[in-house]
Amino acid sequence: MHKADSKTIWARGKSLHRLTAAALVRVGVPQADADTIAGLMTDADLQGSDGHGVIRLPQYVRRIEAGGINVRPNIRVAHEQAAMAVVDGDNGMGHLVVSRAVQIAIEKARAAGVAWVGTRSSNHAGPASLYARMPLAENMVGLYFAVGNANHMPPWGGVDMLLSTNPIAAGIPAGDEPPVVLDMATTVAAYGKVKAKAKRGEPMPEGWMIDRQGQPLTDPNRAHEGFLMPIGGHKGYGLALIVGLLAGTLNGAAMGRDVIDFNVDDSTPTNTGQAILVIDLAAFGGAAPFKAAVDRLIRDIRQSEPMAGVDRIWLPGEQSHGRRLAYAEHGVPLAAALVDDLDRLADRLGIGRLEREAAPSASA
Amino acid sequence: MHKADSKTIWARGKSLHRLTAAALVRVGVPQADADTIAGLMTDADLQGSDGHGVIRLPQYVRRIEAGGINVRPNIRVAHEQAAMAVVDGDNGMGHLVVSRAVQIAIEKARAAGVAWVGTRSSNHAGPASLYARMPLAENMVGLYFAVGNANHMPPWGGVDMLLSTNPIAAGIPAGDEPPVVLDMATTVAAYGKVKAKAKRGEPMPEGWMIDRQGQPLTDPNRAHEGFLMPIGGHKGYGLALIVGLLAGTLNGAAMGRDVIDFNVDDSTPTNTGQAILVIDLAAFGGAAPFKAAVDRLIRDIRQSEPMAGVDRIWLPGEQSHGRRLAYAEHGVPLAAALVDDLDRLADRLGIGRLEREAAPSASA
Repeated sequence: MHKADSKTIWARGKSLHRLTAAALVRVGVPQADADTIAGLMTDADLQGSDGHGVIRLPQYVRRIEAGGINVRPNIRVAHEQAAMAVVDGDNGMGHLVVSRAVQIAIEKARAAGVAWVGTRSSNHAGPASLYARMPLAENMVGLYFAVGNANHMPPWGGVDMLLSTNPIAAGIPAGDEPPVVLDMATTVAAYGKVKAKAKRGEPMPEGWMIDRQGQPLTDPNRAHEGFLMPIGGHKGYGLALIVGLLAGTLNGAAMGRDVIDFNVDDSTPTNTGQAILVIDLAAFGGAAPFKAAVDRLIRDIRQSEPMAGVDRIWLPGEQSHGRRLAYAEHGVPLAAALVDDLDRLADRLGIGRLEREAAPSASA
Repeated sequence: MHKADSKTIWARGKSLHRLTAAALVRVGVPQADADTIAGLMTDADLQGSDGHGVIRLPQYVRRIEAGGINVRPNIRVAHEQAAMAVVDGDNGMGHLVVSRAVQIAIEKARAAGVAWVGTRSSNHAGPASLYARMPLAENMVGLYFAVGNANHMPPWGGVDMLLSTNPIAAGIPAGDEPPVVLDMATTVAAYGKVKAKAKRGEPMPEGWMIDRQGQPLTDPNRAHEGFLMPIGGHKGYGLALIVGLLAGTLNGAAMGRDVIDFNVDDSTPTNTGQAILVIDLAAFGGAAPFKAAVDRLIRDIRQSEPMAGVDRIWLPGEQSHGRRLAYAEHGVPLAAALVDDLDRLADRLGIGRLEREAAPSASA
């Protein structure tokens, strides 16, 4: 998450949405699709997932211009049963493909109690939590798995980067409390965090990366010499592998050596795979008792005794929830360098630049 | 896994099965159920999951004798839809309850493509991998989640132990290769490993446990003064919480402060919850192409370049697979102290002692 300082530029969600949709339309995305994508990218920024919001716009535009993304995809169901489907995204924007997958999973879960929908020929879709959260409004649980779009991790004990940060996300409805929302890479740090450290000129903590000799790597400018570390050592390796098998291989999507590094290759289709599991609380005895039990658990955890020196105990997703409230009120903080990039993009595409907002007062 | 030495006693799987079933029958478990349970406990030992095999027999017997387990449960389906069920175990042995849940999930997945079955009023069921492996024979994927039977972990930053080691297991069919089988606690170490260190008089590595001040705790005899550490810090806390919500809360089973520590309490029903997700490969375009892709991925990983000093790269479940082959041929290695315990139990129950096997020759 961007740490606001004197150089921070603030923008409303609606301004981010307008810029994003206009840029996508300019490179050939139909207006309705551009609005869907811009809505999800803005949602990412509005919850502080700023590695997946408007910061990705220049890359997406570049990729579309290079022919790496199909702007008029025929997104279709390739396989289907009562409680599952595989959605073929026809190399469309991942936001469109995964949104469709989640909608199908919600409909099927309403009928069958539970449903699993996978994707193939999809693309990068932004933060995993966006999709795990979608079923919440239906009183359903969402579990989301994805194959990352670049391999930065070797199998445990190895040096060949055959695995990505393959994230896991979960959205669990609560009652009066904010939902429990987990969104985690199976690596200690996501690669975007490494890039952010490089941009800020800060060293990485030990444990994020190792070099080819297995020694800690803390200089983010040497990131290409090393690998991301899985959480829990061999356990995180196993998790990343299972996520990749379920979100990639099972759907006929890329996994292992077939994964394209979309940071350096703008034109080869990524054949990205994702998977969403939706669980309808109505099938398990109803949403109300479940949500009451979740509220009670949340409060037990929040009110439990912190370790000396710890201010408070957080639930997964609670900090993003707070940011969502604050950014909706005050706008989203953006790094000045990012806004420069966005201005250059807007000028090149001949669309209006991002509208700035006044910085919120210090008391806000 | 037990490290064989000169004091190691070897026993055949059928001998372990015979002892276990006889003991369970002696305390009131019907013969057929005793055979099912003994089969699963023996399978645990035969794959090297020796924290969950015959080592648990004295505790299970003690618990049954204390009235903490219903030996004649009415295991029934409490909720059901096309792709889900909740099985109420009526406080029966977990092995019986979860086996039933997996069978129901397999049948439902065959019809609906995917199925999720949860349990409540269940009990400790042994290693998670046993249940994640069951769908493999049907060309199906298994994903298993469980609430552990004692809270040894606080929420991240806290000191109140509200969470257990809540494991995740996955079984993924392969073709010519052994299946990929992950079985992991969401803590760095399972509590059984701490107890094993104490028994051997060895210190724990840093990172397994911390004390109430957040300092590393390495003396396993001081384990009660500290907590297990989650994998990946706050990420493992989040995973343990999500697993507990899905395997416990969703089914009306214990989670958080309702979890009974079954190591110190033999009589209170644990209301243990588990959940199994089964995915039928037939629904995703057939088992054959999937299994071929998994074989290829396995070989890419196994043949990838190891780090200097690393002998070989392992796949999850590959080492257990090797043990399964070796122990089926030579028998299971057991610690002498464990066999003493089992002999005392056999004498007390008036059943035959465990039959010993000759140690395999050194070349074996």
